[in-house]
Amino acid sequence: MLAEAKAETGLPVVTELMDARDLPAVLEVADVIQIGARNMQNFPLLAEVGRAGRPVLLKRGLSATLEELLMAAEYVLKEGNPNVMLCERGIRTFETAYRSTLDLQAIPVLKELTHLPVVVDPSHAAGRRGLVRAMSLAAAAAGADGIIVEVHPTPDEAVCDGPQALPTDSLAEYAVAVHQAAALAGKELAPAKIGAGLAGAA
Amino acid sequence: MLAEAKAETGLPVVTELMDARDLPAVLEVADVIQIGARNMQNFPLLAEVGRAGRPVLLKRGLSATLEELLMAAEYVLKEGNPNVMLCERGIRTFETAYRSTLDLQAIPVLKELTHLPVVVDPSHAAGRRGLVRAMSLAAAAAGADGIIVEVHPTPDEAVCDGPQALPTDSLAEYAVAVHQAAALAGKELAPAKIGAGLAGAA
Amino acid sequence: MLAEAKAETGLPVVTELMDARDLPAVLEVADVIQIGARNMQNFPLLAEVGRAGRPVLLKRGLSATLEELLMAAEYVLKEGNPNVMLCERGIRTFETAYRSTLDLQAIPVLKELTHLPVVVDPSHAAGRRGLVRAMSLAAAAAGADGIIVEVHPTPDEAVCDGPQALPTDSLAEYAVAVHQAAALAGKELAPAKIGAGLAGAA
Amino acid sequence: MLAEAKAETGLPVVTELMDARDLPAVLEVADVIQIGARNMQNFPLLAEVGRAGRPVLLKRGLSATLEELLMAAEYVLKEGNPNVMLCERGIRTFETAYRSTLDLQAIPVLKELTHLPVVVDPSHAAGRRGLVRAMSLAAAAAGADGIIVEVHPTPDEAVCDGPQALPTDSLAEYAVAVHQAAALAGKELAPAKIGAGLAGAA
Repeated sequence: MLAEAKAETGLPVVTELMDARDLPAVLEVADVIQIGARNMQNFPLLAEVGRAGRPVLLKRGLSATLEELLMAAEYVLKEGNPNVMLCERGIRTFETAYRSTLDLQAIPVLKELTHLPVVVDPSHAAGRRGLVRAMSLAAAAAGADGIIVEVHPTPDEAVCDGPQALPTDSLAEYAVAVHQAAALAGKELAPAKIGAGLAGAA
Repeated sequence: MLAEAKAETGLPVVTELMDARDLPAVLEVADVIQIGARNMQNFPLLAEVGRAGRPVLLKRGLSATLEELLMAAEYVLKEGNPNVMLCERGIRTFETAYRSTLDLQAIPVLKELTHLPVVVDPSHAAGRRGLVRAMSLAAAAAGADGIIVEVHPTPDEAVCDGPQALPTDSLAEYAVAVHQAAALAGKELAPAKIGAGLAGAA
Repeated sequence: MLAEAKAETGLPVVTELMDARDLPAVLEVADVIQIGARNMQNFPLLAEVGRAGRPVLLKRGLSATLEELLMAAEYVLKEGNPNVMLCERGIRTFETAYRSTLDLQAIPVLKELTHLPVVVDPSHAAGRRGLVRAMSLAAAAAGADGIIVEVHPTPDEAVCDGPQALPTDSLAEYAVAVHQAAALAGKELAPAKIGAGLAGAA
Repeated sequence: MLAEAKAETGLPVVTELMDARDLPAVLEVADVIQIGARNMQNFPLLAEVGRAGRPVLLKRGLSATLEELLMAAEYVLKEGNPNVMLCERGIRTFETAYRSTLDLQAIPVLKELTHLPVVVDPSHAAGRRGLVRAMSLAAAAAGADGIIVEVHPTPDEAVCDGPQALPTDSLAEYAVAVHQAAALAGKELAPAKIGAGLAGAA
């Protein structure tokens, strides 16, 4: 199904690997392998994707420190795979007004500590659409190298994660605003790259 | 001393009240009374500044939920003082890479729940200068109504909080960038207001 | 009313001071002045009870570190009042199954760092009766010097905090069990002292 | 090596499984399979040990709620393996005085919600020997069904986790005290069972 979507749209595919035994199937279709927050310290899995050589999107665990995130990345890097993206997706705190607390201070701190790109996932942190635009702009203004955002043509009919998805028809305007915020952080993107980047992430 | 500074510069003064018995002295000089994070639930103090009628800057406690912050504001409001500004200044989490975790998701959520202005204090959250600009842009892009930022002509010689202060000579450029980020969140400020607002907050 | 209760029962009284201006009234009746968790860092209030010289029960703030609790105690001690009891009453975490997370490791750690007595308040941490006995035994076994427990003749009719109160008629059996747990931690109490201590705390 | 130790001592073996591909080797020697805190939400691994049918010791994740711990246990149970022990080993909070905050309130709450045995690991929570005895007594008094404790003949020479290990020659006295604390929680153990249980856990 992912292969079909890829063929039809020409978009690159990011998908999550949860079990090392599924790696061959995932390698057939994925341009980027995602390691989910719950597997951030699944060290055998990290080593496996390190050996596979495919770019990796590594999500920060719900209560992982930045040091632990960097140490987890090392499990991939030490196998000779330098293409690791770090992803802030919200941490667990006492606050119950949202699913997770998006820790944007992680962006400038990780940029000090590593050359790896830092990506932010505001959709999963917030858990609802109403906060996604504001937090996307904030992430870009804080220097994020990329944003993962959930989009759906008709979010209310989505099988999964509909409440946090933006409607597809708002994506173009959203992408322009995020681009402007990123420019404040000193990032220059060609308009075409924005579109492709965002679509790939979604 | 605050009175002198005010006379000399023409800037409004924000200062913290920690003890209700100091209120008369504070009222002589303060344009805005700050209630610090450690006193967010000091209910007699909140009622007192409510009765004093002067605008209040109420800082969120280090482990206060947004609901508790709003409830604390009610202690001021119910005395007939409608001029309360809410201030996010970082919450306490397990992360040790910075002093507090700045919770910018609080901005859009508070804007949904209340008409009170939301101000962000990135200097105290970060505890060091290197993160302040990025987090200020992020806060403005997320819709903050104001930013409190520490500045000092020569931060390395400051008596207090030097490591988190921006040098004064960087303030103009900083203010322009924050203005641009705020514009992305739909805020229109006249350039003169930016300068005054920032100076007053500092 | 507290004075009446004291005269009628002969029990000592602990009551909370929230505002320094109420100190004279509190001193007329209280044998111990309680500083609540929300005021743990209300430094002028701490200094005031330090000067008053009456024993102080200092509750740990909801997100206070042990170091901060000890620093807060210093504000009382430095005024020449050596009679400070430290009270663990639960900290704020992500867990929502109970009101606060009772941090019993604080007991042995505080005992290493200070000679001040360490008291535990399982009723407020749990927020419900069903956990109070188990956590009281645990606190005593971990070396607590005292336990504050809510009791009421008919908890379901209590004006305040009924759900976390033990029925008075279970107190004797409870006290014996807590005594046995304390003995495991090397504490020897005369039976009479147990009764008085527990009653005073309630 | 584990097989040798088992043959020589006659003790049952608990060992951690981190990768489903190691399951056959682990099944050859382990009487109980441990799933570590970092793998608590490694769902394919949980399903695998569910199908293997061997008793499972499931450690609570560092920021897992009790609900999530129970949900993780369901992944094992639904494969037809009813032998799951839940293990509290400390959660992540803002406190830095110890490695993790041991959440003993989890014991009575889990006992309300499930019939699964609840085991506590004070050694890993504390990270240092000095707190282990106090927290073991507390856990037993709170109703724990078992305690995992690190022991070593000469802890200062241990290859791993020495600072948190108790010296073997203190184990007998420790076991007696823990037994007494457990009796306060209504547990009756034959002395022989205590020894065997503790030895197996270590």
